[in-house]
Amino acid sequence: MDAVKGVKGKRLPRAVREEQMMDAAVRTFARRGYRAASMDEIAQLAGVSKPLVYLYLNSKDQLFTACIRREAQALLATVQAAIEPGLSADRQLWAGLTAFFDYTVESPDGWSVLHRQARTHGEPFALEVAAMRDEIVAFVAVLIQAAATEAGAARPEPELAERDMAGLAQALVGAAESLAGWMNDAGTMTAKEAAATLMNFAWVGLGNLLEGERWSARGPQGPAVVGAGEF
Amino acid sequence: MDAVKGVKGKRLPRAVREEQMMDAAVRTFARRGYRAASMDEIAQLAGVSKPLVYLYLNSKDQLFTACIRREAQALLATVQAAIEPGLSADRQLWAGLTAFFDYTVESPDGWSVLHRQARTHGEPFALEVAAMRDEIVAFVAVLIQAAATEAGAARPEPELAERDMAGLAQALVGAAESLAGWMNDAGTMTAKEAAATLMNFAWVGLGNLLEGERWSARGPQGPAVVGAGEF
Repeated sequence: MDAVKGVKGKRLPRAVREEQMMDAAVRTFARRGYRAASMDEIAQLAGVSKPLVYLYLNSKDQLFTACIRREAQALLATVQAAIEPGLSADRQLWAGLTAFFDYTVESPDGWSVLHRQARTHGEPFALEVAAMRDEIVAFVAVLIQAAATEAGAARPEPELAERDMAGLAQALVGAAESLAGWMNDAGTMTAKEAAATLMNFAWVGLGNLLEGERWSARGPQGPAVVGAGEF
Repeated sequence: MDAVKGVKGKRLPRAVREEQMMDAAVRTFARRGYRAASMDEIAQLAGVSKPLVYLYLNSKDQLFTACIRREAQALLATVQAAIEPGLSADRQLWAGLTAFFDYTVESPDGWSVLHRQARTHGEPFALEVAAMRDEIVAFVAVLIQAAATEAGAARPEPELAERDMAGLAQALVGAAESLAGWMNDAGTMTAKEAAATLMNFAWVGLGNLLEGERWSARGPQGPAVVGAGEF
């Protein structure tokens, strides 16, 4: 493993130094795991002294928290930037999912910190990730809301309640997380294939749903369209 | 909080005592959190002495592991028992999802231990839950495989690769976990409503998918059916 940019001893602006330390920290936390990661290794990888890491980032806990926040912001910004407001709902979803899976493949260390390390090592870290996740879910719920409005202009009934849309957003985000976790561990799919799998799963479903189609426990004999209350 | 059955001092078979201790432990871990839960409180709630808890279950770590295993087995058995092999694929999925969401509502402490506590307090516990989750995913993949075979008898193309089915199973399990986490926290949906939401999301999607329908980035102008490789 080579040192993350910056040459030992050379004076750099604090912000640059901090970024280097966090690059080294994200890599070390992801590869060693939070507990086994040592401040010595992080300092060495960043090309700085250990006291400097402590001076800038206080403690291993605080350094880890800073890493989680930085990676969470990066992921959120990546997904949001990918979505062009003018696109149709399915194209927006496709763009967002592609950006999400791309992030997990291109930043495997950042993804590991968010998806594995941060959630496994205590409530305070898990809450940091949960806050970012809530933002993504809210963002997805707005997309679904917009798609429903779009579909509803053509076909007014049956409407989806706000609660249903919140539930669908949770389901979609959970599906994407789970698929990303698996495909990055198993290495059997590219980011684009994962996004396509999820579009087929979620959109061909969600799309029909927004058009008023409902699955019915009564089968093909039953009414084609039933609300949740009628199950 | 009243003591979990059993009266202090009365001699009971070891297996019964252990069950009582684990009932008390699951409740305490779920409500206090793993770290804050004390062996004193667990012993008191179980109506036994603290040394007896240590004698039977060795340590807080081992007691927690035993709780995770018991709840994981209970959840898995509940979902598997709900599914009748003779049913059509969508009815099987509906039965499995209903059983799953029912479990989360009827055993909120068990669900909290599996979904929150076990995953947040270190790798060894997280791996216990991951093993159970893998079993559920494998079980769901078999259901999807059966549904695909069923659909494929009527319509041979395009086929879903085994990898696609594994990915779909991951997406479905992730969606269910996420929805269950949310609806139990927010308390805005019943188990049946959550199962219906997920059927609408996943089956109206999955069902069309198994019939050969594919979402296309090219929109309505593009071919109606494209494989993942053509995106």
